[in-house]
Amino acid sequence: MIELDEQQQQARTWFESLRDAICAEFEAIEAEAGSDAKFAYTPWDRTDPSGAPGGGGVRGVIKGKVFEKAGVNVSTVGGTFEGDFAKTIHGAGDNPNFFATGISLVAHMANPHVPAVHMNTRFLVTTKRWFGGGADLNPPIPYAEDTADFHAAMQAACDAHDPQHYPRFKAWADEYFYIPHRKTHRGVGGIFYDHLEGAGDAGWEANFAFTQDVGRAFLDIFPKIVRRRMGMAFTEAERQQQLEWRGRYAEFNLIYDRGTLFGLKTGGNIDAILMSLPPVTAWS
Amino acid sequence: MIELDEQQQQARTWFESLRDAICAEFEAIEAEAGSDAKFAYTPWDRTDPSGAPGGGGVRGVIKGKVFEKAGVNVSTVGGTFEGDFAKTIHGAGDNPNFFATGISLVAHMANPHVPAVHMNTRFLVTTKRWFGGGADLNPPIPYAEDTADFHAAMQAACDAHDPQHYPRFKAWADEYFYIPHRKTHRGVGGIFYDHLEGAGDAGWEANFAFTQDVGRAFLDIFPKIVRRRMGMAFTEAERQQQLEWRGRYAEFNLIYDRGTLFGLKTGGNIDAILMSLPPVTAWS
Repeated sequence: MIELDEQQQQARTWFESLRDAICAEFEAIEAEAGSDAKFAYTPWDRTDPSGAPGGGGVRGVIKGKVFEKAGVNVSTVGGTFEGDFAKTIHGAGDNPNFFATGISLVAHMANPHVPAVHMNTRFLVTTKRWFGGGADLNPPIPYAEDTADFHAAMQAACDAHDPQHYPRFKAWADEYFYIPHRKTHRGVGGIFYDHLEGAGDAGWEANFAFTQDVGRAFLDIFPKIVRRRMGMAFTEAERQQQLEWRGRYAEFNLIYDRGTLFGLKTGGNIDAILMSLPPVTAWS
Repeated sequence: MIELDEQQQQARTWFESLRDAICAEFEAIEAEAGSDAKFAYTPWDRTDPSGAPGGGGVRGVIKGKVFEKAGVNVSTVGGTFEGDFAKTIHGAGDNPNFFATGISLVAHMANPHVPAVHMNTRFLVTTKRWFGGGADLNPPIPYAEDTADFHAAMQAACDAHDPQHYPRFKAWADEYFYIPHRKTHRGVGGIFYDHLEGAGDAGWEANFAFTQDVGRAFLDIFPKIVRRRMGMAFTEAERQQQLEWRGRYAEFNLIYDRGTLFGLKTGGNIDAILMSLPPVTAWS
Protein backbone atom coordinates (compact mmCIF):
# COMPACT_ATOMS: atom_id res chain seq x y z
CA MET A 1 0.00 0.00 0.00
CA ILE A 2 1.03 3.58 -0.60
CA GLU A 3 0.50 6.22 2.08
CA LEU A 4 -2.22 8.80 1.47
CA ASP A 5 -2.59 12.27 2.92
CA GLU A 6 -5.97 13.67 3.91
CA GLN A 7 -6.90 15.14 0.50
CA GLN A 8 -5.75 12.03 -1.33
CA GLN A 9 -7.81 9.84 0.99
CA GLN A 10 -10.91 12.03 0.62
CA ALA A 11 -10.65 11.98 -3.16
CA ARG A 12 -10.14 8.23 -3.24
CA THR A 13 -13.14 7.64 -0.97
CA TRP A 14 -15.32 9.78 -3.23
CA PHE A 15 -14.27 8.01 -6.44
CA GLU A 16 -14.94 4.62 -4.88
CA SER A 17 -18.35 5.65 -3.55
CA LEU A 18 -19.26 7.09 -6.96
CA ARG A 19 -18.28 3.75 -8.50
CA ASP A 20 -20.57 1.94 -6.05
CA ALA A 21 -23.50 4.22 -6.89
CA ILE A 22 -23.01 3.93 -10.66
CA CYS A 23 -22.65 0.15 -10.56
CA ALA A 24 -25.80 -0.19 -8.46
CA GLU A 25 -27.69 1.96 -10.97
CA PHE A 26 -26.43 0.00 -13.99
CA GLU A 27 -27.39 -3.27 -12.29
CA ALA A 28 -30.86 -1.83 -11.57
CA ILE A 29 -31.24 -1.04 -15.29
CA GLU A 30 -30.26 -4.62 -16.14
CA ALA A 31 -32.87 -5.89 -13.68
CA GLU A 32 -35.53 -3.70 -15.33
CA ALA A 33 -34.63 -5.37 -18.62
CA GLY A 34 -35.10 -8.79 -17.05
CA SER A 35 -31.44 -9.61 -16.68
CA ASP A 36 -29.58 -10.54 -13.52
CA ALA A 37 -26.22 -9.34 -14.86
CA LYS A 38 -23.90 -7.96 -12.16
CA PHE A 39 -20.50 -6.32 -12.15
CA ALA A 40 -17.56 -8.68 -11.64
CA TYR A 41 -14.63 -7.06 -9.83
CA THR A 42 -10.94 -7.81 -10.28
CA PRO A 43 -8.42 -6.11 -7.99
CA TRP A 44 -4.95 -5.45 -9.37
CA ASP A 45 -1.67 -4.21 -7.91
CA ARG A 46 0.94 -2.04 -9.50
CA THR A 47 4.66 -2.27 -8.86
CA ASP A 48 6.43 1.03 -9.24
CA PRO A 49 9.52 0.98 -11.49
CA SER A 50 11.45 2.19 -8.42
CA GLY A 51 10.57 -1.10 -6.74
CA ALA A 52 8.42 0.67 -4.14
CA PRO A 53 4.74 -0.22 -3.66
CA GLY A 54 2.85 1.40 -6.54
CA GLY A 55 -0.76 1.18 -5.46
CA GLY A 56 -3.39 -0.50 -7.54
CA GLY A 57 -7.05 -0.56 -8.34
CA VAL A 58 -10.17 -2.53 -9.00
CA ARG A 59 -11.57 -3.19 -12.45
CA GLY A 60 -15.30 -3.84 -12.64
CA VAL A 61 -16.99 -5.22 -15.74
CA ILE A 62 -20.63 -5.96 -16.48
CA LYS A 63 -21.81 -7.82 -19.57
CA GLY A 64 -25.55 -7.78 -19.68
CA LYS A 65 -28.62 -7.34 -21.82
CA VAL A 66 -28.54 -3.53 -21.95
CA PHE A 67 -24.84 -2.97 -21.21
CA GLU A 68 -23.10 -5.13 -23.80
CA LYS A 69 -19.89 -4.30 -21.95
CA ALA A 70 -19.40 -1.59 -19.36
CA GLY A 71 -16.19 -1.23 -17.44
CA VAL A 72 -15.52 0.95 -14.44
CA ASN A 73 -12.07 1.20 -13.01
CA VAL A 74 -11.00 2.88 -9.79
CA SER A 75 -7.31 3.19 -9.19
CA THR A 76 -5.05 4.81 -6.64
CA VAL A 77 -1.45 4.71 -7.77
CA GLY A 78 1.78 6.48 -6.99
CA GLY A 79 5.52 6.37 -7.40
CA THR A 80 7.91 7.75 -9.96
CA PHE A 81 7.38 8.57 -13.63
CA GLU A 82 9.96 6.89 -15.83
CA GLY A 83 12.39 8.83 -18.01
CA ASP A 84 11.19 11.60 -20.29
CA PHE A 85 7.52 10.89 -19.59
CA ALA A 86 7.81 13.02 -16.41
CA LYS A 87 8.55 16.07 -18.57
CA THR A 88 5.14 15.75 -20.23
CA ILE A 89 3.23 15.88 -16.94
CA HIS A 90 2.22 19.09 -15.21
CA GLY A 91 4.52 19.79 -12.25
CA ALA A 92 6.69 16.70 -12.74
CA GLY A 93 9.43 18.20 -14.95
CA ASP A 94 11.97 18.47 -12.14
CA ASN A 95 10.56 15.85 -9.77
CA PRO A 96 9.11 12.64 -11.19
CA ASN A 97 7.15 11.65 -8.07
CA PHE A 98 3.43 11.34 -8.61
CA PHE A 99 0.16 10.21 -7.07
CA ALA A 100 -3.11 9.67 -8.90
CA THR A 101 -6.54 8.51 -7.82
CA GLY A 102 -9.58 8.40 -10.03
CA ILE A 103 -12.51 6.68 -11.62
CA SER A 104 -12.76 5.79 -15.29
CA LEU A 105 -15.88 4.45 -16.93
CA VAL A 106 -16.83 3.39 -20.44
CA ALA A 107 -20.13 1.78 -21.41
CA HIS A 108 -20.76 0.09 -24.76
CA MET A 109 -24.43 -0.64 -25.22
CA ALA A 110 -26.16 -3.58 -26.87
CA ASN A 111 -28.79 -1.42 -28.59
CA PRO A 112 -27.42 1.00 -31.24
CA HIS A 113 -30.08 3.56 -30.26
CA VAL A 114 -28.54 3.84 -26.78
CA PRO A 115 -25.41 6.01 -26.75
CA ALA A 116 -22.09 4.69 -25.53
CA VAL A 117 -20.57 6.91 -22.88
CA HIS A 118 -17.29 7.76 -21.21
CA MET A 119 -16.76 9.43 -17.83
CA ASN A 120 -13.51 9.91 -15.98
CA THR A 121 -12.54 12.09 -13.04
CA ARG A 122 -9.25 12.09 -11.22
CA PHE A 123 -7.04 13.84 -8.66
CA LEU A 124 -3.35 14.15 -9.50
CA VAL A 125 -0.45 15.12 -7.30
CA THR A 126 3.06 15.97 -8.50
CA THR A 127 4.71 19.16 -7.24
CA LYS A 128 1.22 20.46 -8.14
CA ARG A 129 -2.21 19.21 -7.10
CA TRP A 130 -5.08 19.24 -9.53
CA PHE A 131 -8.31 17.67 -10.67
CA GLY A 132 -9.17 16.60 -14.18
CA GLY A 133 -11.88 14.71 -15.91
CA GLY A 134 -14.82 14.86 -18.20
CA ALA A 135 -17.61 12.95 -19.79
CA ASP A 136 -18.70 12.60 -23.39
CA LEU A 137 -21.62 10.97 -25.14
CA ASN A 138 -20.96 8.64 -28.06
CA PRO A 139 -24.17 7.68 -29.88
CA PRO A 140 -23.85 5.45 -32.97
CA ILE A 141 -27.26 6.92 -33.89
CA PRO A 142 -27.48 10.43 -32.42
CA TYR A 143 -30.71 11.90 -31.03
CA ALA A 144 -30.81 15.67 -30.56
CA GLU A 145 -32.84 15.27 -27.36
CA ASP A 146 -30.19 13.03 -25.75
CA THR A 147 -27.37 15.33 -26.78
CA ALA A 148 -29.19 18.38 -25.42
CA ASP A 149 -30.00 16.69 -22.10
CA PHE A 150 -26.47 15.40 -21.63
CA HIS A 151 -24.96 18.84 -22.29
CA ALA A 152 -27.55 20.50 -20.03
CA ALA A 153 -26.62 18.18 -17.15
CA MET A 154 -22.91 18.91 -17.59
CA GLN A 155 -23.64 22.62 -17.87
CA ALA A 156 -25.64 22.62 -14.62
CA ALA A 157 -22.73 20.91 -12.80
CA CYS A 158 -20.35 23.51 -14.21
CA ASP A 159 -22.53 26.60 -13.69
CA ALA A 160 -22.96 25.82 -9.99
CA HIS A 161 -19.23 26.45 -9.57
CA ASP A 162 -17.97 28.90 -12.18
CA PRO A 163 -19.74 30.51 -15.17
CA GLN A 164 -16.50 30.08 -17.17
CA HIS A 165 -16.35 26.32 -16.65
CA TYR A 166 -18.96 25.13 -19.14
CA PRO A 167 -17.95 27.15 -22.22
CA ARG A 168 -14.30 26.39 -21.56
CA PHE A 169 -14.69 22.70 -20.79
CA LYS A 170 -17.19 22.08 -23.61
CA ALA A 171 -14.78 23.62 -26.11
CA TRP A 172 -11.96 21.56 -24.62
CA ALA A 173 -14.00 18.37 -25.15
CA ASP A 174 -14.70 19.35 -28.76
CA GLU A 175 -10.98 19.79 -29.28
CA TYR A 176 -9.97 16.67 -27.37
CA PHE A 177 -12.48 14.10 -28.66
CA TYR A 178 -11.55 14.67 -32.30
CA ILE A 179 -10.14 12.07 -34.69
CA PRO A 180 -7.85 13.99 -37.07
CA HIS A 181 -7.34 11.19 -39.57
CA ARG A 182 -11.12 10.75 -39.89
CA LYS A 183 -11.76 14.51 -39.74
CA THR A 184 -14.62 13.84 -37.36
CA HIS A 185 -15.43 13.95 -33.65
CA ARG A 186 -15.77 10.60 -31.93
CA GLY A 187 -19.17 11.53 -30.47
CA VAL A 188 -21.40 14.49 -29.69
CA GLY A 189 -19.13 15.92 -27.00
CA GLY A 190 -19.54 16.81 -23.37
CA ILE A 191 -16.91 18.37 -21.13
CA PHE A 192 -13.19 17.86 -20.62
CA TYR A 193 -10.99 19.59 -18.03
CA ASP A 194 -7.51 19.21 -16.63
CA HIS A 195 -4.98 20.97 -14.38
CA LEU A 196 -7.79 22.42 -12.27
CA GLU A 197 -5.79 23.86 -9.40
CA GLY A 198 -7.06 26.13 -6.68
CA ALA A 199 -5.34 28.40 -4.20
CA GLY A 200 -4.90 26.78 -0.79
CA ASP A 201 -7.32 24.45 0.95
CA ALA A 202 -10.35 26.49 -0.08
CA GLY A 203 -9.36 26.21 -3.74
CA TRP A 204 -8.89 22.48 -3.39
CA GLU A 205 -12.26 22.10 -1.68
CA ALA A 206 -13.99 24.04 -4.44
CA ASN A 207 -12.45 21.95 -7.21
CA PHE A 208 -13.14 18.73 -5.35
CA ALA A 209 -16.78 19.80 -4.96
CA PHE A 210 -16.96 20.53 -8.70
CA THR A 211 -15.46 17.14 -9.56
CA GLN A 212 -18.02 15.47 -7.31
CA ASP A 213 -20.81 17.35 -9.07
CA VAL A 214 -19.57 16.15 -12.48
CA GLY A 215 -19.85 12.59 -11.19
CA ARG A 216 -23.33 13.23 -9.77
CA ALA A 217 -24.49 14.85 -13.01
CA PHE A 218 -23.33 11.82 -14.94
CA LEU A 219 -25.07 9.47 -12.51
CA ASP A 220 -28.26 11.45 -12.94
CA ILE A 221 -28.42 11.95 -16.72
CA PHE A 222 -26.91 8.87 -18.31
CA PRO A 223 -29.33 6.32 -16.79
CA LYS A 224 -32.23 8.56 -17.92
CA ILE A 225 -31.00 8.45 -21.51
CA VAL A 226 -30.45 4.68 -21.32
CA ARG A 227 -33.99 4.07 -20.06
CA ARG A 228 -35.37 6.32 -22.81
CA ARG A 229 -33.75 4.28 -25.61
CA MET A 230 -33.14 0.74 -24.38
CA GLY A 231 -36.50 -0.63 -25.47
CA MET A 232 -36.31 0.63 -29.06
CA ALA A 233 -36.26 -1.96 -31.84
CA PHE A 234 -33.28 -1.91 -34.16
CA THR A 235 -32.37 -3.38 -37.53
CA GLU A 236 -29.38 -5.45 -38.60
CA ALA A 237 -28.16 -2.42 -40.58
CA GLU A 238 -28.31 -0.25 -37.44
CA ARG A 239 -26.33 -2.86 -35.51
CA GLN A 240 -23.70 -2.93 -38.30
CA GLN A 241 -23.57 0.88 -38.19
CA GLN A 242 -22.88 0.63 -34.45
CA LEU A 243 -20.06 -1.92 -34.94
CA GLU A 244 -18.34 0.26 -37.55
CA TRP A 245 -18.83 3.36 -35.43
CA ARG A 246 -17.07 1.46 -32.62
CA GLY A 247 -14.07 1.12 -34.93
CA ARG A 248 -13.69 4.92 -34.83
CA TYR A 249 -13.94 4.80 -31.06
CA ALA A 250 -11.18 2.15 -30.84
CA GLU A 251 -9.00 4.20 -33.19
CA PHE A 252 -9.36 7.27 -31.00
CA ASN A 253 -8.53 5.41 -27.81
CA LEU A 254 -5.53 3.56 -29.18
CA ILE A 255 -4.00 6.45 -31.15
CA TYR A 256 -4.93 9.64 -29.31
CA ASP A 257 -6.31 9.08 -25.81
CA ARG A 258 -4.16 10.64 -23.10
CA GLY A 259 -5.50 8.37 -20.35
CA THR A 260 -4.60 5.26 -22.35
CA LEU A 261 -1.10 6.60 -22.91
CA PHE A 262 -0.79 7.51 -19.21
CA GLY A 263 -1.74 3.97 -18.25
CA LEU A 264 0.65 2.34 -20.71
CA LYS A 265 3.52 4.65 -19.69
CA THR A 266 3.03 4.12 -15.95
CA GLY A 267 2.82 0.33 -16.15
CA GLY A 268 -0.82 0.14 -15.13
CA ASN A 269 -2.94 -2.97 -15.50
CA ILE A 270 -3.40 -3.66 -19.23
CA ASP A 271 -6.87 -5.10 -18.89
CA ALA A 272 -7.93 -2.05 -16.89
CA ILE A 273 -6.30 0.40 -19.33
CA LEU A 274 -7.82 -1.19 -22.41
CA MET A 275 -11.16 -1.87 -20.75
CA SER A 276 -12.46 1.08 -22.78
CA LEU A 277 -12.22 -0.85 -26.04
CA PRO A 278 -15.52 -1.94 -27.53
CA PRO A 279 -16.64 -5.57 -27.18
CA VAL A 280 -17.42 -6.39 -30.82
CA THR A 281 -16.12 -3.98 -33.45
CA ALA A 282 -16.11 -3.95 -37.23
CA TRP A 283 -13.89 -2.33 -39.80
CA SER A 284 -15.39 -2.59 -43.27
CA MET B 1 0.32 12.29 -62.14
CA ILE B 2 3.85 12.47 -60.79
CA GLU B 3 6.85 11.86 -63.03
CA LEU B 4 8.77 8.62 -62.54
CA ASP B 5 12.37 7.81 -63.42
CA GLU B 6 13.37 4.42 -64.81
CA GLN B 7 13.94 2.70 -61.44
CA GLN B 8 10.75 4.12 -59.99
CA GLN B 9 8.78 2.93 -62.99
CA GLN B 10 10.30 -0.56 -62.87
CA ALA B 11 9.53 -0.91 -59.15
CA ARG B 12 5.99 0.30 -59.63
CA THR B 13 5.38 -2.10 -62.51
CA TRP B 14 6.63 -5.01 -60.39
CA PHE B 15 4.46 -4.16 -57.39
CA GLU B 16 1.37 -3.88 -59.60
CA SER B 17 2.09 -7.17 -61.37
CA LEU B 18 2.64 -8.88 -58.00
CA ARG B 19 -0.72 -7.51 -56.90
CA ASP B 20 -2.35 -8.98 -60.01
CA ALA B 21 -0.81 -12.42 -59.38
CA ILE B 22 -1.77 -12.47 -55.69
CA CYS B 23 -5.33 -11.36 -56.36
CA ALA B 24 -5.75 -14.01 -59.06
CA GLU B 25 -4.49 -16.67 -56.63
CA PHE B 26 -6.78 -15.54 -53.82
CA GLU B 27 -9.75 -15.56 -56.19
CA ALA B 28 -8.77 -19.08 -57.30
CA ILE B 29 -8.83 -20.20 -53.67
CA GLU B 30 -12.29 -18.69 -53.25
CA ALA B 31 -13.45 -20.57 -56.36
CA GLU B 32 -12.12 -23.85 -54.91
CA ALA B 33 -14.23 -23.16 -51.82
CA GLY B 34 -17.29 -22.72 -54.01
CA SER B 35 -17.42 -18.94 -53.78
CA ASP B 36 -17.38 -16.45 -56.62
CA ALA B 37 -15.94 -13.63 -54.50
CA LYS B 38 -13.70 -11.24 -56.43
CA PHE B 39 -11.56 -8.27 -55.50
CA ALA B 40 -13.25 -4.88 -55.80
CA TYR B 41 -10.87 -2.08 -56.73
CA THR B 42 -11.06 1.57 -55.68
CA PRO B 43 -8.56 4.04 -57.12
CA TRP B 44 -7.66 7.06 -55.02
CA ASP B 45 -5.61 10.21 -55.57
CA ARG B 46 -3.42 12.04 -53.15
CA THR B 47 -2.91 15.79 -53.07
CA ASP B 48 0.49 16.79 -51.83
CA PRO B 49 0.49 19.44 -49.07
CA SER B 50 2.59 21.56 -51.46
CA GLY B 51 -0.39 21.61 -53.82
CA ALA B 52 1.50 19.61 -56.44
CA PRO B 53 0.15 16.29 -57.76
CA GLY B 54 0.83 13.69 -55.08
CA GLY B 55 0.24 10.42 -56.86
CA GLY B 56 -2.23 7.87 -55.63
CA GLY B 57 -3.04 4.22 -55.57
CA VAL B 58 -5.58 1.48 -55.90
CA ARG B 59 -7.16 -0.29 -52.95
CA GLY B 60 -8.41 -3.81 -53.59
CA VAL B 61 -10.65 -5.66 -51.17
CA ILE B 62 -12.11 -9.16 -51.28
CA LYS B 63 -14.71 -10.43 -48.83
CA GLY B 64 -15.30 -14.09 -49.44
CA LYS B 65 -15.81 -17.49 -47.89
CA VAL B 66 -12.13 -18.15 -47.12
CA PHE B 67 -10.86 -14.58 -47.02
CA GLU B 68 -13.17 -12.88 -44.54
CA LYS B 69 -11.46 -9.64 -45.56
CA ALA B 70 -8.25 -9.28 -47.52
CA GLY B 71 -6.99 -5.95 -48.69
CA VAL B 72 -4.19 -5.23 -51.08
CA ASN B 73 -3.10 -1.72 -51.76
CA VAL B 74 -0.67 -0.51 -54.39
CA SER B 75 0.38 3.09 -54.18
CA THR B 76 2.81 5.37 -55.93
CA VAL B 77 3.07 8.69 -54.17
CA GLY B 78 5.46 11.59 -53.98
CA GLY B 79 5.86 15.16 -52.86
CA THR B 80 7.09 16.80 -49.72
CA PHE B 81 7.04 15.54 -46.13
CA GLU B 82 5.40 18.00 -43.78
CA GLY B 83 7.23 19.61 -40.88
CA ASP B 84 9.25 17.56 -38.44
CA PHE B 85 8.12 14.27 -39.95
CA ALA B 86 10.87 14.64 -42.61
CA LYS B 87 13.50 14.41 -39.88
CA THR B 88 12.30 10.92 -38.97
CA ILE B 89 12.78 9.57 -42.50
CA HIS B 90 16.08 8.24 -43.83
CA GLY B 91 17.72 10.79 -46.12
CA ALA B 92 14.98 13.43 -45.74
CA GLY B 93 16.43 15.43 -42.84
CA ASP B 94 17.65 18.28 -45.01
CA ASN B 95 15.39 17.79 -48.00
CA PRO B 96 11.76 16.82 -47.45
CA ASN B 97 11.13 15.61 -51.03
CA PHE B 98 10.11 11.97 -51.29
CA PHE B 99 8.79 9.29 -53.60
CA ALA B 100 7.37 5.94 -52.56
CA THR B 101 5.91 3.03 -54.46
CA GLY B 102 4.86 -0.26 -52.93
CA ILE B 103 2.41 -3.00 -52.26
CA SER B 104 0.77 -3.66 -48.93
CA LEU B 105 -1.38 -6.68 -48.19
CA VAL B 106 -3.24 -7.94 -45.15
CA ALA B 107 -5.54 -10.99 -45.12
CA HIS B 108 -7.93 -11.79 -42.30
CA MET B 109 -9.33 -15.29 -42.68
CA ALA B 110 -12.79 -16.66 -41.91
CA ASN B 111 -11.47 -19.90 -40.39
CA PRO B 112 -9.43 -19.46 -37.17
CA HIS B 113 -7.19 -22.38 -38.20
CA VAL B 114 -5.98 -20.38 -41.22
CA PRO B 115 -3.37 -17.78 -40.28
CA ALA B 116 -3.86 -14.13 -41.05
CA VAL B 117 -0.94 -12.65 -42.93
CA HIS B 118 0.75 -9.39 -43.77
CA MET B 119 3.13 -8.66 -46.63
CA ASN B 120 4.48 -5.31 -47.70
CA THR B 121 7.34 -4.34 -49.98
CA ARG B 122 8.25 -0.86 -51.11
CA PHE B 123 10.80 1.35 -52.85
CA LEU B 124 11.54 4.71 -51.25
CA VAL B 125 13.40 7.70 -52.65
CA THR B 126 14.54 10.73 -50.67
CA THR B 127 18.13 11.91 -51.04
CA LYS B 128 18.65 8.13 -50.63
CA ARG B 129 17.07 5.23 -52.51
CA TRP B 130 16.16 2.04 -50.71
CA PHE B 131 13.90 -0.95 -50.51
CA GLY B 132 12.04 -2.13 -47.46
CA GLY B 133 9.42 -4.68 -46.63
CA GLY B 134 8.64 -7.92 -45.00
CA ALA B 135 5.98 -10.49 -44.32
CA ASP B 136 4.75 -12.05 -41.11
CA LEU B 137 2.35 -14.84 -40.27
CA ASN B 138 -0.38 -14.21 -37.70
CA PRO B 139 -2.19 -17.40 -36.73
CA PRO B 140 -4.89 -17.15 -34.06
CA ILE B 141 -4.22 -20.89 -33.58
CA PRO B 142 -0.58 -21.55 -34.46
CA TYR B 143 0.59 -24.76 -36.20
CA ALA B 144 4.32 -25.54 -36.02
CA GLU B 145 4.25 -26.88 -39.58
CA ASP B 146 2.83 -23.64 -41.00
CA THR B 147 5.30 -21.53 -39.05
CA ALA B 148 8.22 -23.66 -40.23
CA ASP B 149 7.12 -23.60 -43.87
CA PHE B 150 6.56 -19.84 -43.85
CA HIS B 151 9.97 -19.16 -42.34
CA ALA B 152 11.62 -21.63 -44.75
CA ALA B 153 10.11 -19.80 -47.74
CA MET B 154 11.34 -16.45 -46.46
CA GLN B 155 14.75 -17.91 -45.71
CA ALA B 156 15.07 -19.32 -49.23
CA ALA B 157 14.26 -15.91 -50.71
CA CYS B 158 16.87 -14.31 -48.44
CA ASP B 159 19.60 -16.95 -48.85
CA ALA B 160 19.53 -16.63 -52.63
CA HIS B 161 20.83 -13.08 -52.22
CA ASP B 162 22.89 -12.77 -49.04
CA PRO B 163 23.53 -15.24 -46.21
CA GLN B 164 23.26 -12.36 -43.73
CA HIS B 165 19.76 -11.40 -44.84
CA TYR B 166 17.69 -14.08 -43.14
CA PRO B 167 19.19 -14.01 -39.62
CA ARG B 168 19.17 -10.22 -39.70
CA PHE B 169 15.68 -9.75 -41.13
CA LYS B 170 14.11 -12.49 -39.00
CA ALA B 171 15.51 -10.87 -35.85
CA TRP B 172 14.28 -7.50 -37.10
CA ALA B 173 10.76 -8.92 -37.52
CA ASP B 174 10.87 -10.38 -34.00
CA GLU B 175 11.79 -6.95 -32.71
CA TYR B 176 9.33 -5.04 -34.88
CA PHE B 177 6.19 -7.18 -34.57
CA TYR B 178 6.16 -6.97 -30.79
CA ILE B 179 3.40 -5.48 -28.62
CA PRO B 180 5.18 -4.03 -25.56
CA HIS B 181 2.05 -3.37 -23.51
CA ARG B 182 0.94 -7.01 -24.01
CA LYS B 183 4.49 -8.34 -23.66
CA THR B 184 3.83 -10.59 -26.63
CA HIS B 185 4.55 -10.81 -30.34
CA ARG B 186 1.61 -10.18 -32.63
CA GLY B 187 2.22 -13.44 -34.52
CA VAL B 188 4.89 -16.05 -35.22
CA GLY B 189 7.18 -13.72 -37.13
CA GLY B 190 8.68 -13.68 -40.58
CA ILE B 191 11.06 -11.09 -41.98
CA PHE B 192 11.29 -7.31 -41.83
CA TYR B 193 13.83 -5.12 -43.59
CA ASP B 194 14.32 -1.45 -44.32
CA HIS B 195 16.87 1.01 -45.71
CA LEU B 196 18.24 -1.65 -48.05
CA GLU B 197 20.53 0.48 -50.17
CA GLY B 198 23.10 -0.77 -52.65
CA ALA B 199 26.06 0.86 -54.34
CA GLY B 200 25.26 2.15 -57.80
CA ASP B 201 22.97 0.55 -60.36
CA ALA B 202 24.24 -2.96 -59.60
CA GLY B 203 23.40 -2.54 -55.95
CA TRP B 204 19.93 -1.28 -56.84
CA GLU B 205 19.35 -4.21 -59.22
CA ALA B 206 20.41 -6.70 -56.54
CA ASN B 207 18.07 -5.25 -53.94
CA PHE B 208 15.21 -4.99 -56.41
CA ALA B 209 15.74 -8.66 -57.31
CA PHE B 210 15.66 -9.57 -53.60
CA THR B 211 12.46 -7.58 -53.05
CA GLN B 212 10.89 -9.37 -56.02
CA ASP B 213 11.89 -12.73 -54.53
CA VAL B 214 10.24 -11.84 -51.21
CA GLY B 215 7.02 -11.21 -53.11
CA ARG B 216 7.36 -14.47 -55.06
CA ALA B 217 8.08 -16.45 -51.87
CA PHE B 218 4.94 -15.03 -50.29
CA LEU B 219 2.88 -15.85 -53.38
CA ASP B 220 4.18 -19.42 -53.24
CA ILE B 221 3.87 -20.27 -49.56
CA PHE B 222 0.83 -18.45 -48.23
CA PRO B 223 -1.71 -20.04 -50.60
CA LYS B 224 -0.27 -23.48 -49.70
CA ILE B 225 -0.90 -22.84 -46.00
CA VAL B 226 -4.38 -21.53 -46.72
CA ARG B 227 -5.31 -24.63 -48.73
CA ARG B 228 -3.91 -26.86 -45.96
CA ARG B 229 -6.18 -25.33 -43.29
CA MET B 230 -9.25 -23.85 -44.97
CA GLY B 231 -11.33 -27.03 -44.79
CA MET B 232 -10.81 -27.63 -41.06
CA ALA B 233 -13.85 -27.54 -38.80
CA PHE B 234 -13.77 -25.02 -35.97
CA THR B 235 -15.71 -24.39 -32.79
CA GLU B 236 -17.44 -21.27 -31.52
CA ALA B 237 -14.70 -21.01 -28.85
CA GLU B 238 -12.01 -21.07 -31.57
CA ARG B 239 -13.83 -18.33 -33.47
CA GLN B 240 -14.01 -16.23 -30.28
CA GLN B 241 -10.29 -16.84 -29.72
CA GLN B 242 -9.69 -15.52 -33.24
CA LEU B 243 -11.78 -12.37 -32.64
CA GLU B 244 -9.93 -11.54 -29.43
CA TRP B 245 -6.58 -12.29 -31.05
CA ARG B 246 -7.57 -9.76 -33.74
CA GLY B 247 -7.85 -7.18 -30.96
CA ARG B 248 -4.10 -7.54 -30.35
CA TYR B 249 -3.51 -7.14 -34.09
CA ALA B 250 -5.58 -3.92 -34.20
CA GLU B 251 -3.71 -2.57 -31.16
CA PHE B 252 -0.37 -3.19 -32.85
CA ASN B 253 -1.40 -1.50 -36.08
CA LEU B 254 -2.97 1.54 -34.47
CA ILE B 255 -0.32 2.15 -31.80
CA TYR B 256 2.97 0.90 -33.22
CA ASP B 257 2.89 0.24 -36.96
CA ARG B 258 5.30 2.44 -38.91
CA GLY B 259 3.42 2.03 -42.20
CA THR B 260 0.16 3.19 -40.61
CA LEU B 261 1.91 6.23 -39.17
CA PHE B 262 3.58 6.95 -42.52
CA GLY B 263 0.20 6.87 -44.22
CA LEU B 264 -1.48 9.12 -41.65
CA LYS B 265 1.42 11.60 -41.71
CA THR B 266 1.58 11.83 -45.50
CA GLY B 267 -2.14 12.33 -45.98
CA GLY B 268 -2.73 9.01 -47.68
CA ASN B 269 -6.16 7.54 -48.26
CA ILE B 270 -7.65 6.63 -44.86
CA ASP B 271 -9.53 3.60 -46.12
CA ALA B 272 -6.36 2.29 -47.74
CA ILE B 273 -4.21 3.00 -44.67
CA LEU B 274 -6.60 1.34 -42.25
CA MET B 275 -7.47 -1.49 -44.62
CA SER B 276 -5.24 -3.66 -42.42
CA LEU B 277 -7.71 -3.55 -39.54
CA PRO B 278 -9.61 -6.78 -38.92
CA PRO B 279 -13.23 -7.06 -40.08
CA VAL B 280 -14.86 -8.26 -36.83
CA THR B 281 -12.83 -7.90 -33.65
CA ALA B 282 -13.55 -8.51 -29.99
CA TRP B 283 -12.12 -7.10 -26.81
CA SER B 284 -13.27 -9.08 -23.80
